[in-house]
Amino acid sequence: MHELQELGEFGLIDLIKQDTIHDHSSVVVGIGDDAAVVLPTPRQLQLLTADMLVESVHFDLTTTTPWQLGYKAIAVNLSDIAAMGGAPRHAVVSVALPRSTPADFVINLYKGMKEICREFSVNIVGGDTVSSPQGLVINVTVTGEVEPANLVRRSGAQPGDVVAVTGKLGSSAAGLDLLTAGEWEDSSFAWPLVTAHLTPRPQVKTGQLLAAAGATSMDDISDGLASEAHEIAKASQVGIKLYAGQIPLAPEVTEAADKFNKQAIDYALFGGEDFQLVFTMEPGKYEALLAAYPDLAVVRVGEVVDSSEGVTLVDEAGQAQKLEARGFNHFRQEE
Amino acid sequence: MHELQELGEFGLIDLIKQDTIHDHSSVVVGIGDDAAVVLPTPRQLQLLTADMLVESVHFDLTTTTPWQLGYKAIAVNLSDIAAMGGAPRHAVVSVALPRSTPADFVINLYKGMKEICREFSVNIVGGDTVSSPQGLVINVTVTGEVEPANLVRRSGAQPGDVVAVTGKLGSSAAGLDLLTAGEWEDSSFAWPLVTAHLTPRPQVKTGQLLAAAGATSMDDISDGLASEAHEIAKASQVGIKLYAGQIPLAPEVTEAADKFNKQAIDYALFGGEDFQLVFTMEPGKYEALLAAYPDLAVVRVGEVVDSSEGVTLVDEAGQAQKLEARGFNHFRQEE
Repeated sequence: MHELQELGEFGLIDLIKQDTIHDHSSVVVGIGDDAAVVLPTPRQLQLLTADMLVESVHFDLTTTTPWQLGYKAIAVNLSDIAAMGGAPRHAVVSVALPRSTPADFVINLYKGMKEICREFSVNIVGGDTVSSPQGLVINVTVTGEVEPANLVRRSGAQPGDVVAVTGKLGSSAAGLDLLTAGEWEDSSFAWPLVTAHLTPRPQVKTGQLLAAAGATSMDDISDGLASEAHEIAKASQVGIKLYAGQIPLAPEVTEAADKFNKQAIDYALFGGEDFQLVFTMEPGKYEALLAAYPDLAVVRVGEVVDSSEGVTLVDEAGQAQKLEARGFNHFRQEE
Repeated sequence: MHELQELGEFGLIDLIKQDTIHDHSSVVVGIGDDAAVVLPTPRQLQLLTADMLVESVHFDLTTTTPWQLGYKAIAVNLSDIAAMGGAPRHAVVSVALPRSTPADFVINLYKGMKEICREFSVNIVGGDTVSSPQGLVINVTVTGEVEPANLVRRSGAQPGDVVAVTGKLGSSAAGLDLLTAGEWEDSSFAWPLVTAHLTPRPQVKTGQLLAAAGATSMDDISDGLASEAHEIAKASQVGIKLYAGQIPLAPEVTEAADKFNKQAIDYALFGGEDFQLVFTMEPGKYEALLAAYPDLAVVRVGEVVDSSEGVTLVDEAGQAQKLEARGFNHFRQEE
């Protein structure tokens, strides 16, 4: 078992470089020069997004393997590209590593990144590897491309639009509770929740399909459905009404909620990290979408209303109440 | 004086967003959606580079102001774009900040970034702001563009080419010694050295000029001239002969070397962070360049030779000796 200080920075880069290019036609220079050189697709807009993951804030090395962490570090960025209706293209990966990190840890971290990049045909074209006095930090920047006509922002929702999501919510946050409690290996229902938390699947193909089908706004659910609904409402200057009874939850979320004496729906509304998409669409287009893709796992959860109504949650008895944003906020005092 | 935990993540983002776009024609969506959306220039190659700066590894908050740190975090990336012959376009900035960070610190950090971005017409289009349990981490990713014919890699040097640099070397490393010793405020010669270390000037215009003039290889001097010469030699499969007497040093570097009982030239060869460019060029083109731009601050420091000669330094007595790379290596045991 080698540690990084034996391998050195350049030995490490040689290991990282392998199997990083999946779409050779778009890469002129990959890892190893001052900058990567790539070929943009003519007449497409370019997308840029970055996410930084910090040890003890975003992940805990006692509950994630390095492979899972690498996979997730890329996944969260692909999810942002998906939310714009785009196709991810290239990734630039910076890691700050304590010197005592075993080389195998780093190799497995990159294996997880390379696996999801292979799956989505994303090239790792560059980055930076530096030492950290304490704790692991990963920053991934991903570029994407989108046809100008298919770009979906947060700001296009119109009153009357359907609000829908691309899959079941709450699993990731329930999985985090199980991981934090340290009891998930004994719970028969835990596996899908823990998996949803550790290796989320970005909805890239679905995002592109929804963009082409006329989504008027879209957001990936990184901070909980409530927070994303507020972001769309704010950017689009509309109100949003969500129906509690329509929000799709995996049955395992209910089991986890029972275990922790929580409301299952709170995992979906306030939990975050599901990396499903929430989108708005004119009702006629939404019906046409369902007719054209009967197997598409989209679920209607509400409707866009006038901004004066704000963001509300209608309970199963038909009572509407104001819905707070309450997503994860990095510098909020209460946390 | 507000701390971040009072301001919150979204209050912070609102502050950061101001004055970030200088070239409005190329930005469709800046900070605030899932991803930034930019317009690539038709028929140009795209460049991507990233640098991560970690507190206590890359900087010390007792010797840099937040403004200087922000400036440098962008500068080191622009330098990588310059080394490819490109023009920088967009920056994506991620910062991990301890919760106790004063809001003023962050505002000044971004002011430094915005100042150099304004100067080089680079847009800050996105990023991530997260909390850090300990220590500040900054990752900047910069995109650039270059005409395909003007792309300069490390791999094009040919035996017979001139080796030259774009300015005086060693100042940054001498400045770091002064800062570390904590005595620079008493030294009349210190100011230009400390400035070179804290707010290096990326050689963007010169890089583009050299690319257009036919540079066969180019590298920015981030790890010392010796290390960059080795990188060009390795990538181009050539040898490089440097002449010690020709390497340009600021007079202040000699004063600092005397103070610390070091060899002045070692600051240039092994110090790093000068962010000048080293390049190779056919002698005829080099002469034509000097004739066309008599004020250009380029200095010939050596020549490209056959790979069998390796990388050597010829001293003032005409004796050649093998030159070791010895740049900064993040995971090397000796450090």
